Amino acid sequence: MQESADTGRMVRIAVDAMGGDHAPAETVKGAIQAARELGVEIILVGPQAEMDREFRKHDTVGLPVRIVNASEFIVDGEHPVLAVMRKPDSSVAVATKLVKSGDADAMVSAGSTGACMVCAMQYLGMLPGIDRPMAGGPFLQLSPETSVFDMGANVYCQPEQVVNFAVAGCVFTKSFLGIENPTVGLLNVGSEAGKGNQLAKEAYPLLEKSGLNFIGNVEGMDIPKGKANVIVCDGFVGNILLKFCEGLGESVRDWLLEELSGSLEQEKLEAATDKLWKLMSPGAVLGGGPLWGVDGLVMVCHGASLASQIAYTIKEAKSCAEAGFIDLLRTDLVKAQSLISA
Amino acid sequence: MQESADTGRMVRIAVDAMGGDHAPAETVKGAIQAARELGVEIILVGPQAEMDREFRKHDTVGLPVRIVNASEFIVDGEHPVLAVMRKPDSSVAVATKLVKSGDADAMVSAGSTGACMVCAMQYLGMLPGIDRPMAGGPFLQLSPETSVFDMGANVYCQPEQVVNFAVAGCVFTKSFLGIENPTVGLLNVGSEAGKGNQLAKEAYPLLEKSGLNFIGNVEGMDIPKGKANVIVCDGFVGNILLKFCEGLGESVRDWLLEELSGSLEQEKLEAATDKLWKLMSPGAVLGGGPLWGVDGLVMVCHGASLASQIAYTIKEAKSCAEAGFIDLLRTDLVKAQSLISA
Repeated sequence: MQESADTGRMVRIAVDAMGGDHAPAETVKGAIQAARELGVEIILVGPQAEMDREFRKHDTVGLPVRIVNASEFIVDGEHPVLAVMRKPDSSVAVATKLVKSGDADAMVSAGSTGACMVCAMQYLGMLPGIDRPMAGGPFLQLSPETSVFDMGANVYCQPEQVVNFAVAGCVFTKSFLGIENPTVGLLNVGSEAGKGNQLAKEAYPLLEKSGLNFIGNVEGMDIPKGKANVIVCDGFVGNILLKFCEGLGESVRDWLLEELSGSLEQEKLEAATDKLWKLMSPGAVLGGGPLWGVDGLVMVCHGASLASQIAYTIKEAKSCAEAGFIDLLRTDLVKAQSLISA
Repeated sequence: MQESADTGRMVRIAVDAMGGDHAPAETVKGAIQAARELGVEIILVGPQAEMDREFRKHDTVGLPVRIVNASEFIVDGEHPVLAVMRKPDSSVAVATKLVKSGDADAMVSAGSTGACMVCAMQYLGMLPGIDRPMAGGPFLQLSPETSVFDMGANVYCQPEQVVNFAVAGCVFTKSFLGIENPTVGLLNVGSEAGKGNQLAKEAYPLLEKSGLNFIGNVEGMDIPKGKANVIVCDGFVGNILLKFCEGLGESVRDWLLEELSGSLEQEKLEAATDKLWKLMSPGAVLGGGPLWGVDGLVMVCHGASLASQIAYTIKEAKSCAEAGFIDLLRTDLVKAQSLISA
């Protein structure tokens, strides 16, 4: 499906130009910025007239950017499954199909994550042993070498899926952070083996057999402490933690601004509190990451993404394509699955 | 079991003087401090010789403090159930039995929470419809009117238990915070009804029928935002959140100390960061709270409690006894249970 960069040609990224709270203005702007700065070919996907109009706002002379028409797009509040069924020519669907046909190496969307998932499942299919995409990636930038999988795509989980989360997390850690043999911890209510709810108890022995560098149970405080590179949990727990952390980042920033007001230069205070807030809510700030487990590169961004986040995510997409990311993930998934079922 | 204060006599608190990392020195010190400041009668429970030795370190002339001998105590790392079985004369067991016999209105322990739970279940029994104690109380002091139930005592949960958590949280909110008709939110991965894992889906309609002021699902960010007075979840999620928050509080404090070092007076910086850390980890700082659902007042403190936390918890115990707290909880539990089974 995905071509590696050693073919010598530019990585081609399809951008769902109509996805996100600030689409198409910010998506197009970010995509053009990426074409200018990153040496990637951009395929803007959206209704031709709207794309032309946005396109004309920018200086694109000589840039490898082209438009592929999509007559429709999915709007906020639509049910993902129904929307994808009813709108086969939506921007997100067309962008995904460009990956399937080999016309793009990756697609990037800031639209509904649910719709991206449905398109990915319908048009690209899943990697071996994966039923639905996994959500995960960096969590707290206070512990930047620790990622959390799953963060909400898999609210119900089987223990085998937790092993898949761990594999995905290890591929992330190796590919994005350059850490060999990453450590894996199972998020639990105590450090001793045998602790936890049913899922944790059943996942533990599978992780032991997985061939991964499993260090056992970790607890809530081990996330900020960075005790493991990859911390796995079901998507219910992961999603609540993610949103808790983002909300807490805002509360802490507001509290500090008030508490320290007048104690130091206002500008310096604002810079520090803003930095802390970003460290506590990376998902809302940096950009997006891959939809894990899809047989093709689908990168999802936060709905509120601005041009800089779109460009950042396109950069990540390029790295993933160049690293042959999907094949790495496929190989590691198959390996771990065969070990745990042995 | 528990006498209300309108009998006109002093509230009597049995203190497990051997429980906690800093026992007996800090427990005895805190208990004597409470006797001096709070107008409560203190019953120190522990081996007579040790109690006498600690007692002599303080000026106790005229204070209502007495010693009840317990020949044994439970040490760190013992299995709670086995320890309570093997040591029927342990300090925690003797203190609990003083509540059962009516010789004390409440007991306070900074020892193993597991051992307190086992003693409570064995010697006091549970309130109607409760199988095992519930853990909950204030969470973030950044949102001081929001409490979380359960925080780890009930890792496996039935949906009916979630209603009991909500009832306990409402009694907490009414009794300790003076808020009438507290709002209740179900912690979930989305705000819409029908979201979530199986427990959340099944608990939702029961909460709707419970007669409580249920406002529907809340998400992770709604904890720091204080969207509901009582936020309910299973003890697996609650415990992970609690520990995450405590660990994050430390990380944030350390980061700020480094980031803002030199930008303002060191003393002022340390005061602010310390204050923030305390706001983020109240459990470790203030003291303890009741073991919810027990048919008698059992107050558990953090294992690392110092004298001030012991004294604080004794003050809470006094308030609970004076408010007729157990009877309030019993009444509200019975009411909600009859509504949800109707």
